[in-house]
Amino acid sequence: MKKLINDPGSVVTQSVAGLVAAHGDILSASEDPLFVSRAGGAVSGKVGLVSGGGSGHEPLHAGFVGVGMLDAAVPGAVFTSPSPEPILAAMQAADGGAGVVQIVKNYTGDVLNFEVAAELGEAEGMTVRSVLVADDVAVEDSTYTAGRRGVAGTLVVEKIAGAAAERGDDLDAVVAVAERTAAAVRTMGIALTAPTVPAAGRPSFDLEDDEVEVGIGIHGEPGRRRVKAVSADETAELLLEPILHDLGDDVAGREVLLLVNGMGATPSLELYVLYGAARRILEERGATVTRSLVGSYVTSLDMAGASISVMPLDEELTALWDAPAHTVALRQGM
Amino acid sequence: MKKLINDPGSVVTQSVAGLVAAHGDILSASEDPLFVSRAGGAVSGKVGLVSGGGSGHEPLHAGFVGVGMLDAAVPGAVFTSPSPEPILAAMQAADGGAGVVQIVKNYTGDVLNFEVAAELGEAEGMTVRSVLVADDVAVEDSTYTAGRRGVAGTLVVEKIAGAAAERGDDLDAVVAVAERTAAAVRTMGIALTAPTVPAAGRPSFDLEDDEVEVGIGIHGEPGRRRVKAVSADETAELLLEPILHDLGDDVAGREVLLLVNGMGATPSLELYVLYGAARRILEERGATVTRSLVGSYVTSLDMAGASISVMPLDEELTALWDAPAHTVALRQGM
Repeated sequence: MKKLINDPGSVVTQSVAGLVAAHGDILSASEDPLFVSRAGGAVSGKVGLVSGGGSGHEPLHAGFVGVGMLDAAVPGAVFTSPSPEPILAAMQAADGGAGVVQIVKNYTGDVLNFEVAAELGEAEGMTVRSVLVADDVAVEDSTYTAGRRGVAGTLVVEKIAGAAAERGDDLDAVVAVAERTAAAVRTMGIALTAPTVPAAGRPSFDLEDDEVEVGIGIHGEPGRRRVKAVSADETAELLLEPILHDLGDDVAGREVLLLVNGMGATPSLELYVLYGAARRILEERGATVTRSLVGSYVTSLDMAGASISVMPLDEELTALWDAPAHTVALRQGM
Repeated sequence: MKKLINDPGSVVTQSVAGLVAAHGDILSASEDPLFVSRAGGAVSGKVGLVSGGGSGHEPLHAGFVGVGMLDAAVPGAVFTSPSPEPILAAMQAADGGAGVVQIVKNYTGDVLNFEVAAELGEAEGMTVRSVLVADDVAVEDSTYTAGRRGVAGTLVVEKIAGAAAERGDDLDAVVAVAERTAAAVRTMGIALTAPTVPAAGRPSFDLEDDEVEVGIGIHGEPGRRRVKAVSADETAELLLEPILHDLGDDVAGREVLLLVNGMGATPSLELYVLYGAARRILEERGATVTRSLVGSYVTSLDMAGASISVMPLDEELTALWDAPAHTVALRQGM
């Protein structure tokens, strides 16, 4: 294993320290318990938004802390859920007195630890609501999950809910639009290589030189099946077919958001080829791609591969997607 | 070779088509000859800025076309200089009547082709100036270069010169500040793995599992030496030592820009560990890191590795760095 780290045990804390040193205008961090929050602190009267989960998916979540998106993020160890203590501390840092919304990817450990933190927060008098993201259409249950996994669609939920909170929506309204977004966004991914967890020191699984894993999870957990490597056009078909099926095969005449997300080691040269292929298929089905995002936003360490996410849009979701945001990884209109 | 492409021959044109489809608010493209320019066309009375070079270094250069940076970019085939014809066409698209500045990375093919394009432009009555970027301190001459190579510092020159042109500086002033930036920025990189050019289908060179190449170029061309893989702290020392030596070992009391650039396949988790290590060393030398950029901006396809760039700042360079920019890959204040 070759990685630009000092040792596997310190990689997350050292990376967070670097992140906050580079972006002190946007972020501050607590070292113990470890969490990241807005440099300016909680916004009084605004609903607070907190997310988190195992590290290794950067820029998710800390890269989405800032005006228009999250108030705080909790990075666990690599591919390991953070414990309730830092989640509670992050919620306290995010609490502007209007309630706190947790955005939780659907993994058993995350669900449990965020739930315990919510109970602890409520015992302290905080009002806490939780929104689950389970956008991965690849599998129903998986290695770390009962039900579908939360993957790249999480960033869409964080953007939309963050914009709703920022414009002053109350707790119920933020939860409602976050749940509506989580219910609308669909994702599926493909792996060309396996990620290497620093503490493990070797790839999480073996793939032949001409083989890809369709429906991969963001921890390298198994997808639907392995097939011989295919072209970008065929990959777009393989990933979009189950997404469109899940959307009721009915995107004709609809405006959609198309997110092509790199898994970490895939060059943007390739991501835009895949984006072009996916866009063509959606247009052939009669959809209009009115909003797009292409880049490595919800990653799996150094895994090569990509995911495609589609979300049908309406006027409100489009406006919230377009609203200003100022985070390390996503910046719009400010 | 596994890549999310359709075939090696069409990867650049299909990727550019995807890029422009996704970002039609910022970019438009000409297919033949192939170049990318601002969606709004040339800005009348503004100095036009054009760059380009072989593809495979994305988001450089097309990702830096937009308000506050470039007016047009010319992508060649992967790791291959574009010919004079598309460069000339891009210059015409960028020409707002106040002259055109070419920003050229110092590779023999690029230097030659941009020079021919400049002559053709001048024969048509265009006023053309050229600024060479040669920021890589690793080697004096290299596989494709007489003199130092142009690497990640190119984005710094494009940002600073772009801001100068945008605020209305005339041709001489834009050239002067671009040359001052190119002379001030220093870079050195390290490779953990080799890139795979699509048309070649195999890695450009072999590295042992425990070996890294110090002083690598952005085409995978040889650097200074191969060493056993080292920690992030030691990597920062290895890369900064020659940079600081080249800056006269005199950064004490100075404000500097620190750019930690990923080569393509390196997770941001690692880039921020390296950034933290580099920042500590600069601070130990008495410098103050007042501006930072961390991400994969000047890449080498799917190569794992990173480069560090340092530029001493003054008031003008800082103001131009901070000026608004609205491009696909870099966005500031708008």
